[in-house]
Amino acid sequence: MHTTALVLFSGGQDSTTCLALALSKYERVETIAFDYRQRHRVELECRLNVLREIRAQFPQWALKLGQDHLLDLAVLGEVSDTSLTRDTAFKMEQSGLPNTFVPGRNLLFLTLAAAVAYRRDLQVIVTGVCETDFSGYPDCRDDTMKAMQLALSLGMDKRFLIETPLMWIDKAATWDMAERLGGPPLVNLIIEHTHTCYLGDRTHRQAWGYGCGACPACELRERGYARFRALQVPTPVQARSPMP
Amino acid sequence: MHTTALVLFSGGQDSTTCLALALSKYERVETIAFDYRQRHRVELECRLNVLREIRAQFPQWALKLGQDHLLDLAVLGEVSDTSLTRDTAFKMEQSGLPNTFVPGRNLLFLTLAAAVAYRRDLQVIVTGVCETDFSGYPDCRDDTMKAMQLALSLGMDKRFLIETPLMWIDKAATWDMAERLGGPPLVNLIIEHTHTCYLGDRTHRQAWGYGCGACPACELRERGYARFRALQVPTPVQARSPMP
Repeated sequence: MHTTALVLFSGGQDSTTCLALALSKYERVETIAFDYRQRHRVELECRLNVLREIRAQFPQWALKLGQDHLLDLAVLGEVSDTSLTRDTAFKMEQSGLPNTFVPGRNLLFLTLAAAVAYRRDLQVIVTGVCETDFSGYPDCRDDTMKAMQLALSLGMDKRFLIETPLMWIDKAATWDMAERLGGPPLVNLIIEHTHTCYLGDRTHRQAWGYGCGACPACELRERGYARFRALQVPTPVQARSPMP
Repeated sequence: MHTTALVLFSGGQDSTTCLALALSKYERVETIAFDYRQRHRVELECRLNVLREIRAQFPQWALKLGQDHLLDLAVLGEVSDTSLTRDTAFKMEQSGLPNTFVPGRNLLFLTLAAAVAYRRDLQVIVTGVCETDFSGYPDCRDDTMKAMQLALSLGMDKRFLIETPLMWIDKAATWDMAERLGGPPLVNLIIEHTHTCYLGDRTHRQAWGYGCGACPACELRERGYARFRALQVPTPVQARSPMP
């Protein structure tokens, strides 16, 4: 039924795991990301490193891995700069960074991804959004994804499937999924090459990868990794998170 | 219930009529448009002229007319340039212009409009999309608008109303709506200052406005205007299209 996919691939742990899943399931997989002048621009470098390493280390996946699309979304900054009437806009995020959150940013990503998927004739849009992590952004929720699937399918007169393999699992289960898909080499690739840290720190090497180790994104990744490793040794296979 | 609105305002006949409708119903109205390097860039000048004339000629509306937002959507060109696998992309449009149609373009406009509406605390998004004119783009259909209202409201965790006053009426009824809202001065303002022509022609003045008179957009506007004028004189009020 579904044989082709476009993965929203930011170069983080989650989207790398989604990419591995898509490569394990589909025959042709392309990737897309958005340059919206993110603070953590190092992500955009990391994602190319991840793609390079996947091609080098996983030859069976390299055959399926197609074009990478990077779209310039400077417009996000314009929306952020729009003079504001809502207090929320002036709040600082937990990490201490200024809140340049654009409401519904993820809807914009999905809409552009669908436009590219339409043009490239790709059926499935894979995204690593997740209701179980701390963010709780409404544009990452399951209801939103399902409404978007309808809106995009109707609006482009082509049926899309929005696949969200991480929606209901935690970070430990995400590590576990990576290991099931690509074994220790994929876990090591994720540790070495993906980026998560809000501060863009690539100098401090932790057990679970590079990062400051203190921002919420690092904490989440660290806790997930610790739980993944703790569960790994003594727990029988059937007690681990099932594959979706 | 609803007191504030953001109008997708391109500077054409349809969106000018929508703007007049919003100004007649709501207490605070803002406008938004997108610069996507459109061939008919004259639209972007016309829209400023329309806003200026509305402020000058309709003082009761001028008090309600707030900020105008123009977002740079260069990304649309990038999606168009994406190398393509679908034949549709290479087709020429009826007008003879190259088809740089981006599937779901209107979904992108609505998503960005909703982000601005969120930040500006505006409740209603008004758009002049219409199922009765010739285009039939799926991203202008009623089903799509209703699915988008759900997706945007869920994705931003704020209820939006997408209002489509022209969805089921034809161009003659759109002229008629303008006359009911703002009388002959608004009809004349639309003739003089709005832009419709695909070729960006502002040199040939027709009875119904400026334009080449030959492209599909001009033809549609001309036919609608002729029917509006023909219906106007002899027809009793109750036989004319009702206001939405």
